[in-house]
Amino acid sequence: MTDLVTFGETMARLENPVVGPMRHARSLDLGIGGAESNTAIGLCRLGGTAAWFGRVGDDEFGRLITTALAGEGVRLGHTVVDETAPTALLFKERRSGTLTRVQYYRTGSAGSRLCPSDVPHELIRSARVLHVTGITAAISDTARQALDDAIETARDAGVPVSLDVNYRAALWTPAEAGECLHNLVKRADLVFATEEEARLIVPGDDPAGLATALAALGPRDVLVKRGAAGVVASCEGRLHVLPAHRVPVIDPVGAGDAFAAGYLAEFVRERPIAERLATATAAGAYAVTVRGDWEGLPSRADLDLLQDAEDTVTR
Amino acid sequence: MTDLVTFGETMARLENPVVGPMRHARSLDLGIGGAESNTAIGLCRLGGTAAWFGRVGDDEFGRLITTALAGEGVRLGHTVVDETAPTALLFKERRSGTLTRVQYYRTGSAGSRLCPSDVPHELIRSARVLHVTGITAAISDTARQALDDAIETARDAGVPVSLDVNYRAALWTPAEAGECLHNLVKRADLVFATEEEARLIVPGDDPAGLATALAALGPRDVLVKRGAAGVVASCEGRLHVLPAHRVPVIDPVGAGDAFAAGYLAEFVRERPIAERLATATAAGAYAVTVRGDWEGLPSRADLDLLQDAEDTVTR
Amino acid sequence: MTDLVTFGETMARLENPVVGPMRHARSLDLGIGGAESNTAIGLCRLGGTAAWFGRVGDDEFGRLITTALAGEGVRLGHTVVDETAPTALLFKERRSGTLTRVQYYRTGSAGSRLCPSDVPHELIRSARVLHVTGITAAISDTARQALDDAIETARDAGVPVSLDVNYRAALWTPAEAGECLHNLVKRADLVFATEEEARLIVPGDDPAGLATALAALGPRDVLVKRGAAGVVASCEGRLHVLPAHRVPVIDPVGAGDAFAAGYLAEFVRERPIAERLATATAAGAYAVTVRGDWEGLPSRADLDLLQDAEDTVTR
Amino acid sequence: MTDLVTFGETMARLENPVVGPMRHARSLDLGIGGAESNTAIGLCRLGGTAAWFGRVGDDEFGRLITTALAGEGVRLGHTVVDETAPTALLFKERRSGTLTRVQYYRTGSAGSRLCPSDVPHELIRSARVLHVTGITAAISDTARQALDDAIETARDAGVPVSLDVNYRAALWTPAEAGECLHNLVKRADLVFATEEEARLIVPGDDPAGLATALAALGPRDVLVKRGAAGVVASCEGRLHVLPAHRVPVIDPVGAGDAFAAGYLAEFVRERPIAERLATATAAGAYAVTVRGDWEGLPSRADLDLLQDAEDTVTR
Amino acid sequence: MTDLVTFGETMARLENPVVGPMRHARSLDLGIGGAESNTAIGLCRLGGTAAWFGRVGDDEFGRLITTALAGEGVRLGHTVVDETAPTALLFKERRSGTLTRVQYYRTGSAGSRLCPSDVPHELIRSARVLHVTGITAAISDTARQALDDAIETARDAGVPVSLDVNYRAALWTPAEAGECLHNLVKRADLVFATEEEARLIVPGDDPAGLATALAALGPRDVLVKRGAAGVVASCEGRLHVLPAHRVPVIDPVGAGDAFAAGYLAEFVRERPIAERLATATAAGAYAVTVRGDWEGLPSRADLDLLQDAEDTVTR
Amino acid sequence: MTDLVTFGETMARLENPVVGPMRHARSLDLGIGGAESNTAIGLCRLGGTAAWFGRVGDDEFGRLITTALAGEGVRLGHTVVDETAPTALLFKERRSGTLTRVQYYRTGSAGSRLCPSDVPHELIRSARVLHVTGITAAISDTARQALDDAIETARDAGVPVSLDVNYRAALWTPAEAGECLHNLVKRADLVFATEEEARLIVPGDDPAGLATALAALGPRDVLVKRGAAGVVASCEGRLHVLPAHRVPVIDPVGAGDAFAAGYLAEFVRERPIAERLATATAAGAYAVTVRGDWEGLPSRADLDLLQDAEDTVTR
Repeated sequence: MTDLVTFGETMARLENPVVGPMRHARSLDLGIGGAESNTAIGLCRLGGTAAWFGRVGDDEFGRLITTALAGEGVRLGHTVVDETAPTALLFKERRSGTLTRVQYYRTGSAGSRLCPSDVPHELIRSARVLHVTGITAAISDTARQALDDAIETARDAGVPVSLDVNYRAALWTPAEAGECLHNLVKRADLVFATEEEARLIVPGDDPAGLATALAALGPRDVLVKRGAAGVVASCEGRLHVLPAHRVPVIDPVGAGDAFAAGYLAEFVRERPIAERLATATAAGAYAVTVRGDWEGLPSRADLDLLQDAEDTVTR
Repeated sequence: MTDLVTFGETMARLENPVVGPMRHARSLDLGIGGAESNTAIGLCRLGGTAAWFGRVGDDEFGRLITTALAGEGVRLGHTVVDETAPTALLFKERRSGTLTRVQYYRTGSAGSRLCPSDVPHELIRSARVLHVTGITAAISDTARQALDDAIETARDAGVPVSLDVNYRAALWTPAEAGECLHNLVKRADLVFATEEEARLIVPGDDPAGLATALAALGPRDVLVKRGAAGVVASCEGRLHVLPAHRVPVIDPVGAGDAFAAGYLAEFVRERPIAERLATATAAGAYAVTVRGDWEGLPSRADLDLLQDAEDTVTR
Repeated sequence: MTDLVTFGETMARLENPVVGPMRHARSLDLGIGGAESNTAIGLCRLGGTAAWFGRVGDDEFGRLITTALAGEGVRLGHTVVDETAPTALLFKERRSGTLTRVQYYRTGSAGSRLCPSDVPHELIRSARVLHVTGITAAISDTARQALDDAIETARDAGVPVSLDVNYRAALWTPAEAGECLHNLVKRADLVFATEEEARLIVPGDDPAGLATALAALGPRDVLVKRGAAGVVASCEGRLHVLPAHRVPVIDPVGAGDAFAAGYLAEFVRERPIAERLATATAAGAYAVTVRGDWEGLPSRADLDLLQDAEDTVTR
Repeated sequence: MTDLVTFGETMARLENPVVGPMRHARSLDLGIGGAESNTAIGLCRLGGTAAWFGRVGDDEFGRLITTALAGEGVRLGHTVVDETAPTALLFKERRSGTLTRVQYYRTGSAGSRLCPSDVPHELIRSARVLHVTGITAAISDTARQALDDAIETARDAGVPVSLDVNYRAALWTPAEAGECLHNLVKRADLVFATEEEARLIVPGDDPAGLATALAALGPRDVLVKRGAAGVVASCEGRLHVLPAHRVPVIDPVGAGDAFAAGYLAEFVRERPIAERLATATAAGAYAVTVRGDWEGLPSRADLDLLQDAEDTVTR
Repeated sequence: MTDLVTFGETMARLENPVVGPMRHARSLDLGIGGAESNTAIGLCRLGGTAAWFGRVGDDEFGRLITTALAGEGVRLGHTVVDETAPTALLFKERRSGTLTRVQYYRTGSAGSRLCPSDVPHELIRSARVLHVTGITAAISDTARQALDDAIETARDAGVPVSLDVNYRAALWTPAEAGECLHNLVKRADLVFATEEEARLIVPGDDPAGLATALAALGPRDVLVKRGAAGVVASCEGRLHVLPAHRVPVIDPVGAGDAFAAGYLAEFVRERPIAERLATATAAGAYAVTVRGDWEGLPSRADLDLLQDAEDTVTR
Repeated sequence: MTDLVTFGETMARLENPVVGPMRHARSLDLGIGGAESNTAIGLCRLGGTAAWFGRVGDDEFGRLITTALAGEGVRLGHTVVDETAPTALLFKERRSGTLTRVQYYRTGSAGSRLCPSDVPHELIRSARVLHVTGITAAISDTARQALDDAIETARDAGVPVSLDVNYRAALWTPAEAGECLHNLVKRADLVFATEEEARLIVPGDDPAGLATALAALGPRDVLVKRGAAGVVASCEGRLHVLPAHRVPVIDPVGAGDAFAAGYLAEFVRERPIAERLATATAAGAYAVTVRGDWEGLPSRADLDLLQDAEDTVTR
């Protein structure tokens, strides 16, 4: 049995090591990133088991992705090496300390060729949770079909479906995304969204209203993430609020994936809501203090270290 | 026609990559810097045309300077390669996060040998603005003569003269500088100064008083720069105040040159004062978030990015 | 008047700084490369004037290309920024000290969208030589049309046409290339080819035979490049042989472009064949001793340095 | 079924990035190394399946080791995290281009606490080959017992035993090693040794004599490795000689492990001796061209690349 | 005569250059650190003379330590190179911007083999102050005996004893430490402690109470260090409070050693308490703005630079 | 007593880390270099005692020099910090693997202000050897006077004078140098020269003839250094020839200083000529395998390592 099964497109990520126009960089740092695989790594670091599937090219970037994920303990038994398309690239220009630009080389990529026949039904049926994101609905028609197939497979087998909305403006418009995401939320058991993302799907002013409105569409747990302002959750009909840890922010990318990983790591262990939120918040805190999308994700020992430090400070 | 013509001494700049005593550095970062050429680059990035002239040595540092400026689109048709003197060096010791020391190897440098015969009168007469700084008055007698020649050429041709006071304590005393700068301000149409610089020339307590006092000497526009506190301007007899953007400061050097570039980029396009100040302030904001004197200067697209980010935050 | 006019696709180039599988790299070195622009840079370094045209994307990689070329003095007045397509990427995996793999992200790139309407006829008519490569014939149909247009424009105006065969196996098959290249050679005045490339076009065993056979197709000067073995040339009906300089080879990429630059730098100055070959050979020697496709290209002073060193050694 | 099962001590490896006294280094490169795990990685890269077991500390160096091995596809199901001892360290001082010093922090390490109860008998019984090295006999008494246990388990199950002699002067004397290694060779089916190592066990002047003498002790295949001079093998009673590839040597460490991996990758596929030697030699060639003990190990595609290059050169 | 004599264990220090799990680092920065030698360096930079003694291994790390200390002017005439044990290592994992983990390879190290026969009695008797830390009491029995011997030697000769409590949780428990430290405080003339450290020895809620309680045990001067909150001192029976400088904190490690160095630098010059506290506070401010335990320690000129900057700001 | 006393100008040295035009470097490596101080370091590493004196500026480069020399154990008691002049800079452009250009910022430097009053007569009188180079005669008139003073002091006290000719074309012409150097050789007991340098002073075709001719001027030992071709020596009237070690050459700079250090290290120990030449040759071999002028200089243990390696190879 696998605690978490997830899938999507993971890309090679290249970014300028020193803030400024990317053309001034003499070298670009190389890594990988993908919302779903980030969450899979996060869950493994917290002691769970996770499987990710998707397509990568038969090139060094594809091998970089599978090496990194396997190294982190993510199970890749159903990952496909597509010999006919390259691995997608994500260039991140760190233009200033707070401003970032993204450029994709993603058209026709291996990852966007994901299709229903890639979906491992048995693996999904045996999972404790299936985790998906809205990105997959946006990268290609076949990927969206695979997404539908996977969700239906999980629902038929009684496997809870976790959805991180993850709206990407470069991939589709709010109008295109809104309807599709609405439909995904209705079929999900757990939903993660920022306030902006929530507003693509339901009306609402404040985080609590947004959480309640999303929960009204069906999900048991809705987590509205507010960055440094913490989280507002509607879980089984009750509202919960937790502030974020106060940490120096180095790189906010990946905080949402970390939050989902922390929440799901406790969800699959059937821990109570307070513990789910605490671990989610701590994972998010670690993610933002380290460069890279997933490199800073915490182990259980790291959670203790953070707790000890706060105990000292607040004594 | 060239929007902006400027000139002065541009140096090779070497600094320790990691904060601390410079002797602990295993390597020094190499770049170029010069107040006037920084402003020329800034104007080019914002879509204008700029020419810079001056002297560089017939050495790798001279070639570094001309390569960098030409790469940024600055016109160098009247720049002189002086085969008899080396390019000046500027060592910047980043002693702590906020404390810096400067050491020059500038005595007898090619750049300080600038002289009146180097001044391209036709180029100046055809410019929309001539931009000079007080540094040129301090580096040598011949450079000061060239400065006078250039200013008179512009004034005779009805070309507005922009002056960035740019007092450098390593080059002359306040007493020496004061009289000379006073004389320069009187002949300028636009003047940029910090509060400290303004006080070398006119008495005054607060920024508004200083701006008014400088304007009383003749300039149409006076910009008193206050760093993180923003700017106070006296433009055509009226006072304007604009706060600075709130950004993480990585390297404050070059912020003044960026401010002048932003202001002049709109000035040569005959944009209203509000727009001139807005672009000046945004350019200054970008300059301080990136290491290096000019590398972080914004394009028009960067101005939009900054605006979008602030719109999001303040929504 | 411009000494040399050339055009083609220039790409951002990313490669692993340390030899081995590219996936082990934590960062990739960033630069630019393009056979034609390399040659333009080489000619400028040797004191000539060169213009390059082509299309780049409206992205940081496009700006990297124009900044680098402008910095080197290459004239870019007819270069087009294509807002609808990205700049092409070239990844170079330095797999061992002598083995290299190349991966392109070039499909649909801005550079491959070059078309006849981009060709600046007046610029070509006023050049001392038009320099083209076989790569342009292979990247797209419109590019090949632009190539034809440019060649015919030059021929009509009596401007000599220089062709570097530059066969790229990743872009077309020997069969496809052979006929096209044959047709290009017939219309060229100067031809540069390796032995392998020559054999795509004419039969022949040894370098001298190949040079003679190519010359029989029409070109006045044919240069058969043999790497460390030197060059065999057929110039105005006579054979010339020159050995290569013995230097430590760091990166052989760009040696051919350097050779062409050296040869053409003397050709446009109407120097005799011995001098053309000597400068070509020296430029090639410099190119291979420095990482990067063009960074090591020599100035006139560098030619003297190499000569002095050899005088010392051979005394 | 697993093609290859192996075990031993794998260490964190730290070395100076630039040649010279290690105390002049501002940073040390961090990686991992272990003769047996290097061979396991090499076999995986060539398409086989490999399992490694051993002990690592509950520290970042232990996690570095398991992450790297899992990333390369090595199965770690029986690896033990020892909470009571640290992971061993290996410092490599690259004193000159050809001279190296090694310093261990290995006393009492987790890896040296390997003991018979760690040995997974079922895993060994199901392997196509068990691969061991003489190092394990030298690191501790319990490790030597585990070695004996593993060998006997393999022999009882009819699993061939592969031994790489791998004498380490820092761990034991020639006298101590000689008898022990003699006893290991007698129980092995395949033996890899340098000439120097062979002489610790059997008398002999030339490689062929040494191979024959070792084979007389029992092993079916004996491979006497001669570095740049190639290999002399005694396989099923016949002598075979193969020269090494001529490649630029960057780091000779790991060449022996690569050779064993190449040989065993074909052995488990039941390929003939010529193919076993060819792959072994090619793997060794790749290993020495890349810094690091195992990072340069080839894939099947890399073998083709090497072959193509040599075909071109020798044409 | 030597102003300050000190001794203890100095280690090679390796840490990840970029924040995150240490296993993600490709290289570790190499330096040295030791509380006592840090203080010796700090005193030398402020113009005093200092001697340090202790044991280092006969290895590159030992030579790194002696080279660095000698380079800073610390006298090493009684330092012992122990050929039978390695130099200790300290690995510092910078897990996030504010969280750090430490791993020692210190068991059986050369430094911990310090023993009474290593104590240079004449050197101590001729010093202006003997500076010790509580760490030495914790690393081994022989080291603690050497500590006792040195203290008694100083006391007998009328040389003031300075003690920095420096409790290290990795070396002993609070219970073990408490009694021993209590005994050390009683024999000291100057005592430096954090609030937490003070509470191991005396009861007390607030810093002033702790300072008073420690002073009641005998020491003439007691300095309770409060990090960013400044210092509370009990000197010759009177309480003094000084806030810390407001500086960007890069690395808090070594601030305490710097504080002691600043205080002692003025103490040995017999400067008044206000000056002692001012220099101590300034030294601490510099230490935290620079990576490394001691690299950022100030010279007299640096103290002026800090003062000038604050004068400017507070004008 | 000090084994070796030497003096001269030591400079900060900056060079491009990657071969090519220096303007392409983003950073320059920082170190120190000076022929005489290099030799002093070399002697210390081989177990001798050495003192160096000279002038450095009151700047970070001056402090870099004194820190590095003190760290290596060189005695600096008579070194002067000149507050009125900057430390000299040496830029080394590594233009290709074998071609280098040098640019000095040395005019008016602190080091060139060395004068007779800086000469410590007692120190020289108590030395086993005084070591000087021809560079000191070329940097300024006062430095040449100091050189004369030092030599006469040594001669009067019966201290042998060692001269490394060290002709620098950037400082004086062969004609200027020839007479001066001739005069220096006549007063020296030991002379080190390359063949080219020897020819500035005496006529001669082959190394043996040059050595003999120099010896005829007075020196007891003359060493004609021939780089990779080894050394020819005339010692007390007899000729000796020794080949160089065969090692990979990374950076030839400093090899001559290393050779002198090795020779003098044995000379002051009164070892026979064979041993003097062997150590000199080994020191030269180490110097060329490591980047930097002196960083690669060997310890006694390094000499053993080189010997062991050669024993292995030649067995």
